[in-house]
Amino acid sequence: MDNDDLRRGRPTAHKQFDEATALLAGDALLTHAFGLIAESYASQPVLAHGLIRELADAAGSRRLIGGQMEDLLAEKKADATKDDLEFIHLNKTAAMIEAAFAMGGMIGEAIGGTQAPRTLDTLRKAGRDLGLAFQIIDDLLDATADTATLGKTAGKDAKADKATFVKLHGLDASRRIAAELTASAIAELRELPGDPAFLHALVQSMAVRGK
Amino acid sequence: MDNDDLRRGRPTAHKQFDEATALLAGDALLTHAFGLIAESYASQPVLAHGLIRELADAAGSRRLIGGQMEDLLAEKKADATKDDLEFIHLNKTAAMIEAAFAMGGMIGEAIGGTQAPRTLDTLRKAGRDLGLAFQIIDDLLDATADTATLGKTAGKDAKADKATFVKLHGLDASRRIAAELTASAIAELRELPGDPAFLHALVQSMAVRGK
Repeated sequence: MDNDDLRRGRPTAHKQFDEATALLAGDALLTHAFGLIAESYASQPVLAHGLIRELADAAGSRRLIGGQMEDLLAEKKADATKDDLEFIHLNKTAAMIEAAFAMGGMIGEAIGGTQAPRTLDTLRKAGRDLGLAFQIIDDLLDATADTATLGKTAGKDAKADKATFVKLHGLDASRRIAAELTASAIAELRELPGDPAFLHALVQSMAVRGK
Repeated sequence: MDNDDLRRGRPTAHKQFDEATALLAGDALLTHAFGLIAESYASQPVLAHGLIRELADAAGSRRLIGGQMEDLLAEKKADATKDDLEFIHLNKTAAMIEAAFAMGGMIGEAIGGTQAPRTLDTLRKAGRDLGLAFQIIDDLLDATADTATLGKTAGKDAKADKATFVKLHGLDASRRIAAELTASAIAELRELPGDPAFLHALVQSMAVRGK
């Protein structure tokens, strides 16, 4: 989507192979996600149906794709606002993390056999806060880390004068907001039944990551 | 996917807008297909689940995407065989028509409340035959029609020396095979319960289409 040709230190698919192959691989993986849910929960079609609705909503034109499209459009205009940026981050990044948290909750409920709508709401909130924090930290790392550490080209946001949290809020406020969102996510996870150790560790590791 | 910039006489999305927008629109539409099934059959999750499995299988890496990838690879090698070509046509084109026929059958069964596995098999066979005929006719039209009639660039297969039914079997044999497949599809549709008038007309219109 952008001009960055490295991910996790390795060339992206469209560099390693070619544009058409990368595009087809994307379509295949997207289709596979839905097929995998349908196959994995073949004996629980109601659960499979709920998971597929959640994924289609999060990955669809109003959320992930909408956020990515607004991100592309924002690259072309100099006056993207904080609201534009929040829309982009909430949808491009946080929607899928929120959906992953919610889907985990739906599977847990189906296995546990209990209905816990408040648990789902809490998981969604925690996923959204984590997702937003994740993207702000991405913006911070692009501005402060080097390419070798990052595994992808650093400094490209500033070079492109792209609207990021760092550009619109500054480094200090971005760090503060990311820390607040991380704390909120952890507080929300504390409300959940069961052992939240893994989710706590996940949220913490996102906050202190160096790449 | 190919270098053709016209579809139905209008510029393709990647020409009208740009590559990134076209790619995102494709991802959004693919996701929307799964979401639409899940929403439309929200009160029949077992049916929704079956339809999603069918679509994910037909559109996935082993079928539609696999066929399209083999098609791209075949463009780069001079010695694609009739078997290669049949694999490409069966998966790139026929898989989705077969799935559309089968999904119609699954919805009909769910509404009618009867189980009719033979009906589904017959629908699949008819869809596959129609799909293969459709693609052979596409190859024939590329070789014999003009761009204005076709609504997309004509003659590009021969120009690219692409493996097509016309190149590997010749015009006459291609016409004969397409006619045989059309006749088979119609014979299969005759075996179905209910009124097959629409499907008959659909198969016939595919066989005599000029674009």
